[in-house]
Amino acid sequence: MKVEQVLHMNGGDGKTSYANHSLLQRAVISAVKPILDASIEELCTTLFPDCLKIADLGCSSGPNTLLVVSAIIDNLQNTFRKLNRPPPSLQAFLNDLPRNDFNTVFRSLPGIYKKLDEEHENKFGSCFIAAMPGSFYGRLFPDNSLHFVHSSYALMWISEVPKGLVTKAGEGLNKGNIYIAKKSSPAVFDEYFEQFNTDFTVFLRSRAQELVPGGSMVLTTMGSIKSNDPLSIWEFVGLKLHDMVLDGLIEEEKLDTFNMPYYAPTTDEVKEVIDAEGSFSLQKLEAFRNDWDSYIKQANSGLDKKARAAILSTDIRAVGEPILASQFGEEAMDDLFRRFEEDVLDHMEKEQCQFINLVISLTKKR
Amino acid sequence: MKVEQVLHMNGGDGKTSYANHSLLQRAVISAVKPILDASIEELCTTLFPDCLKIADLGCSSGPNTLLVVSAIIDNLQNTFRKLNRPPPSLQAFLNDLPRNDFNTVFRSLPGIYKKLDEEHENKFGSCFIAAMPGSFYGRLFPDNSLHFVHSSYALMWISEVPKGLVTKAGEGLNKGNIYIAKKSSPAVFDEYFEQFNTDFTVFLRSRAQELVPGGSMVLTTMGSIKSNDPLSIWEFVGLKLHDMVLDGLIEEEKLDTFNMPYYAPTTDEVKEVIDAEGSFSLQKLEAFRNDWDSYIKQANSGLDKKARAAILSTDIRAVGEPILASQFGEEAMDDLFRRFEEDVLDHMEKEQCQFINLVISLTKKR
Repeated sequence: MKVEQVLHMNGGDGKTSYANHSLLQRAVISAVKPILDASIEELCTTLFPDCLKIADLGCSSGPNTLLVVSAIIDNLQNTFRKLNRPPPSLQAFLNDLPRNDFNTVFRSLPGIYKKLDEEHENKFGSCFIAAMPGSFYGRLFPDNSLHFVHSSYALMWISEVPKGLVTKAGEGLNKGNIYIAKKSSPAVFDEYFEQFNTDFTVFLRSRAQELVPGGSMVLTTMGSIKSNDPLSIWEFVGLKLHDMVLDGLIEEEKLDTFNMPYYAPTTDEVKEVIDAEGSFSLQKLEAFRNDWDSYIKQANSGLDKKARAAILSTDIRAVGEPILASQFGEEAMDDLFRRFEEDVLDHMEKEQCQFINLVISLTKKR
Repeated sequence: MKVEQVLHMNGGDGKTSYANHSLLQRAVISAVKPILDASIEELCTTLFPDCLKIADLGCSSGPNTLLVVSAIIDNLQNTFRKLNRPPPSLQAFLNDLPRNDFNTVFRSLPGIYKKLDEEHENKFGSCFIAAMPGSFYGRLFPDNSLHFVHSSYALMWISEVPKGLVTKAGEGLNKGNIYIAKKSSPAVFDEYFEQFNTDFTVFLRSRAQELVPGGSMVLTTMGSIKSNDPLSIWEFVGLKLHDMVLDGLIEEEKLDTFNMPYYAPTTDEVKEVIDAEGSFSLQKLEAFRNDWDSYIKQANSGLDKKARAAILSTDIRAVGEPILASQFGEEAMDDLFRRFEEDVLDHMEKEQCQFINLVISLTKKR
C-alpha cells in the first residue's frame, strides 16, 4: 500500500465528508492559537521581513484549510499596529499530498481575498496564497525560503506503514489490531517508533534547510501518554474490525496484515528526535488532553451522549474511511462505523479515552 | 458575465476535453522554444541565481501544462554543463484562474519528479513545482520574487468583455458577431483595443513589481495582422451562431449582446503598450503565421482535409465551449461545431485564414 495513494480525508461535502466533519481539528487549531500568535510576533519583531513567507503543511481541504492563514493575517495586522509600522506582505503555501482536493480550496480563494480586503480595509499588505503539493517527509521548498512553518494534525500520519509489521513470508506481527494496542507485542511498538523516528528526523532536516536562520515552526500532532499503550482511537476501531472477522464479514488475513500509517508519540519521544536531529531549539512542548467528545460538547452543549457518539464516529470516519476502505472494502464501512459508534462512550468511561494533543514550538538555530 | 467564472478549457479527458485537444498549443510552445532557451540562458549567465524562480501564467490543465517547466530544466542542465557549474535549483509556479483543474496537474507530479530524476540522473538541482491560482491581471507574487515569467496562449483572454459593447439600455454594439468581424463598426474595435490596453498595462505593471531587476519574460499570444479585420476564428464561429439565429435555434438578442473576452493585437499595438508602460525593454517581437490546419498536418500527415477540419473544430470547441455554452446553452454546442466544421477548410482557402502568433521577449529594466 502506497500511503500517498490512499491517505486523504473523505472528499466532497456530503454526509461523511471531511469538510463537514472537521470540528475536532478546528478546536485544536483554536487551542493552539496563543502559541501560534507568540511565535509569529517573536518572528516578526526579530526578523522584520518585507514579505513573510509561511507554509501550512497538511492543510487538507475544508473549512479549516485557511484558518491558520487568516489567524496569521490578523496577528500581523495587530503586531504591526502596536509597532506603528506597515505590516509585511504575506506569501502562504498550502501543502498537502498531491491527491488532496486543492481545486475546492482554490475556488474559495476569491471569496477569501474579498473578505480580507473588507476586514482589513485594504490596510493589510498584499497576501498571496499559493499551493505546494507533495509529501512533507522530503523537501518542498528552496533553501532558506521560508520564515515560518505550521502544521496541525498531520504529523501523526507517518510516511509508510513500518515494513517489519508484516514478515517476508507475509505473516502479520500485529494480528487482530490495526495500530499499537494493549495486545500488541513490544516488537510492534519498536517498529512504529523507528518509523516515526526516521520520518520526523527527515521532516526536521528538510524544514531546517528551507527555513531561514531564526525561522520558526509550530507543530500540533496527536500524541500519547504511554506510547506502548496509547489508547488510540484506532485501537478501538480495530476491535470492531476484529468483531467483523469473527462474524465472517472480513477475511482474517486482511486484518492481520493491515496497520495504520499513524504514530502518536509521547513528549519524551518528540524531544529525543528533535535533540538528536540538532537543527532546532525547542521553545515549547506541551501536551493537552480532551475527552473524545469535548469538542462536540463545546460546539453544541444541547446534544445528548448518543448524539455525540454518532458525531464522533462520523468525524473519525471522515478521516479514516479512504485508507480503511482501500483494505476492507467500501461496503464494510457503514457496518464498521455503526459498530464503533455503539462503543464510543463506553470506551471513554471505562478506559478514560482522550485525545492527547502535542504542541511543539521550535526555532531554527542561527 | 464574470470571465473568471466561465473562462476555462473543457475539463476531464473525454472526446471534447482540452487535455485531448491541445496540439495547437503544443506546436506553438515548441516553435517558441529557441526564444525561451535564449532568454533563460541569458538570465542565468547574468544573474546566476541559487534558485531560479519562474512562473508559467495560464498553464491550464493537460499534457502541455508541464512542457515549459521541463524545457527550462533541460535548458538549465545544458547551460550549466557548458559553464561547468552546478545548475541552480528551480521553483516553478503554475498559474491559472482558480477554476482551472489543478487537481489533475498535481496528480501527475509524482510521475514528473520520477522522470526528472531518471533523465537527469540526479544531477539536476532540486525542483519544486508549486501553484498560484489567480488572475494575472493583478498581482500574484511578492515584490522582486521571480526571475522569469512565461505565458503561452493566455494573454489573448482579456479580463472582461469591454463594457461599452452593450449600451446601458441593453443594446448590443456588435450585433450578429461575437468578436471583431468585417461587419463590426469601428467603435467595436475601439472598445476592444481599450480593454486590451488596460489589461496588458496592468499585466506589465504587476510583473514589473514581481520580477527582479534584469528578470525576463517570454510571452506568446494570438495576434492579428490587421486588428480591425483580424480574421479570427471567433468571427467564423460567430457566422454559424448567426445562422442558428436565422434557423430559430438561438434567440437573436442572446447573440447580439454576447462578445468573446478575447483580443488578438498586432505587433504595433503590443509595442505601443509596452513602451507606454515603460518598465520593460523589448528584446524581440515576432509574428509567425500558420494555416489553421498546419499543426494537424505536422502531427499526422496522413489525414485528409475533412479529417483535419473535424479535428480543428473539436480543438476550438475544447477551448470555447465553456464560455459559449454559458451564453447559448450546452445543447446548442453539438450543432454549432458541426456547422463550423463544415466551413473550416473553405474559410482557409477563400479568406486565407491563419493563426497569427506573437512572441514577445522582454527584460525588466534595471
